[in-house]
Amino acid sequence: MNVNGKPFHSIWLEPGDPPRVRCLDQTRLPHALVIEDLDSLEAYERAIKDMHVRGAILIGVTASFGMVQAAREAAGRGQGLEALETAGRRLKATRPTAVNLAWAVERQLAKLRVTRPADCVKIALDEARSLAAEEEAACRRLGENGLEIIRRLSQAKAGKRVNILTHCNAGWLACVDYGTATAPLYAAFNAGLDIHVWVDETRPWNQGARLTAWELGQHGVPHTVIADNVGGHLMQHGLVDMAIVGSDRTTRTGDVANKIGTYLKALAAHDNQVPFYVALTASSFDWSVRDGVREIPIEERSGEEVRTISGWTPEGVRSVLLTPSTSPAVNYGFDVTPSRLVTGLVTERGVCPATESGIAGLFPDLAGAK
Amino acid sequence: MNVNGKPFHSIWLEPGDPPRVRCLDQTRLPHALVIEDLDSLEAYERAIKDMHVRGAILIGVTASFGMVQAAREAAGRGQGLEALETAGRRLKATRPTAVNLAWAVERQLAKLRVTRPADCVKIALDEARSLAAEEEAACRRLGENGLEIIRRLSQAKAGKRVNILTHCNAGWLACVDYGTATAPLYAAFNAGLDIHVWVDETRPWNQGARLTAWELGQHGVPHTVIADNVGGHLMQHGLVDMAIVGSDRTTRTGDVANKIGTYLKALAAHDNQVPFYVALTASSFDWSVRDGVREIPIEERSGEEVRTISGWTPEGVRSVLLTPSTSPAVNYGFDVTPSRLVTGLVTERGVCPATESGIAGLFPDLAGAK
Repeated sequence: MNVNGKPFHSIWLEPGDPPRVRCLDQTRLPHALVIEDLDSLEAYERAIKDMHVRGAILIGVTASFGMVQAAREAAGRGQGLEALETAGRRLKATRPTAVNLAWAVERQLAKLRVTRPADCVKIALDEARSLAAEEEAACRRLGENGLEIIRRLSQAKAGKRVNILTHCNAGWLACVDYGTATAPLYAAFNAGLDIHVWVDETRPWNQGARLTAWELGQHGVPHTVIADNVGGHLMQHGLVDMAIVGSDRTTRTGDVANKIGTYLKALAAHDNQVPFYVALTASSFDWSVRDGVREIPIEERSGEEVRTISGWTPEGVRSVLLTPSTSPAVNYGFDVTPSRLVTGLVTERGVCPATESGIAGLFPDLAGAK
Repeated sequence: MNVNGKPFHSIWLEPGDPPRVRCLDQTRLPHALVIEDLDSLEAYERAIKDMHVRGAILIGVTASFGMVQAAREAAGRGQGLEALETAGRRLKATRPTAVNLAWAVERQLAKLRVTRPADCVKIALDEARSLAAEEEAACRRLGENGLEIIRRLSQAKAGKRVNILTHCNAGWLACVDYGTATAPLYAAFNAGLDIHVWVDETRPWNQGARLTAWELGQHGVPHTVIADNVGGHLMQHGLVDMAIVGSDRTTRTGDVANKIGTYLKALAAHDNQVPFYVALTASSFDWSVRDGVREIPIEERSGEEVRTISGWTPEGVRSVLLTPSTSPAVNYGFDVTPSRLVTGLVTERGVCPATESGIAGLFPDLAGAK
């Protein structure tokens, strides 16, 4: 999607020999556009763990490029597969909830385990490039599938503005391009439909207020930032026509782990008969899990992310303390929305019910694997 | 309740002739303890509108003292009842949602309309003092009634820690002392029960992170600050034994207007069979309203309260911009929780179901008035 009127990706290969991997440092948005070189395995680990890159698909793609870096470093030191297995474990340990991370690393290792050491860098680079291209294409198709839902809502309102609520950032910044939850929004906007997006701030890390608002604004999509507390009130008063969010991990039965607070919006949507969609590509399914609430590990991050917040001042970006200095805080990163609250899953293969049979119907090749 | 080990009120009369009314400037908490003189009608209007004082009961009591100031100013200028009616309208216009404000002003005017001009200051002062004392006593009794609920939960857990979630600040800072939602918590803590409070941050104004955390900390009550998004996850995992909130206006049928986001927590409590209580004194009932969602006016405040936030830095308190500079925000102050989601109302007369008959059973004298 566009930044300052020009197409942009969240991560890309800068041509050269070897090509360099670059990404946006998302901790600096929206107040500064900072581009970062990923040039060591440590840089990859830090970028994922400290959320310079974040979002299920993007951390998968980043980890895949991280394995290219690992292969390059192993080759330089004359090390073999064991070093790559260790690198894979290090990358997988950076964040626990999104399934894409482990999946992307395993995809690399499955290839590298059957590759001659001399070819590992090339094979890994091909694999990372393929993954990035696949995810980009999947998000584009997901957007076309979701566009049909918005088009029907627009027609039902005789072309009047369609109000869509989203939580966190499942935008192009969380993917390679298009986004998951935002892909249908960009497709609808680009198709000329009159849409407006309610952007949940998404405390504590403010992915909505910082990232989603920025992406939508850069691309010209009408939007309004709201506190996370507001969505229920808007739905009670007919001000939300649909909600759509992304997913960090979706079970084979349709339970959805996503940014903390998603469950509360799903409850409100259910209570007010507002359709609640989850957008994801195949890489965010975890076919090994049936009960999302009990089985998906939920990341707990530092309470300092709750106690303090940073933002722009005329003197530069500053961090401020919000709570009494002695009050502790806890910081769960995700929650699980039970499938019963999800109207449908929007994927690159189409839209399906959030049920085991609905999902298996679209993904028989993958669902059958476990 | 205690501040630095000494009992404190949110508003008080400083002895003298005439006695001066003082309050805490709650916009400065928790980073500074600033005491403010309320010494002109404009000062009262500003204090309520700009939320130096806030909370249903406290703005009622403050407005009642504001009418004393109005009577004093009218006497000084040789003005009569008309000036008091005008002052009442000005005070009532400062905030729209909490019913206590209009109710307290009307209580004053009902007396002043039948009072000789020469006696107005004295009568108004007596009335304001009475109201403050009544509300303080009502909160104390409410606390004793709510204590029994917590005692039963504690017994059911064999004395193990009872975890209680609250939203916004319905603490002594929102009242004169004790608070509404917090009154049972202080009573339980003072009675030696093992309790722990989950404090919702309560964006955008952060009444929880700034005020509730501060009050509880000053009194020594164990607590943890959480983002507003977290409560549903905690309830799904058995980490909340009850929720209790205050109310800015409760209908005769039991619908509850309270700080924006309350409805989302009530939905989550309902979905997880967590008891959800609303604590209020009689002054927060609006006997004229039946359908809270349709009839209660919801205050819309400036979007700047969402786009920016202030907090402590080593260089002093600073305001920071959270969103892109071009992204708009809206800011609804309250939402309405339908009575079907409320387990019970905790009042100074006891605990009752959030139903018309339940409420009328405890308040037959007031419910019959309309």
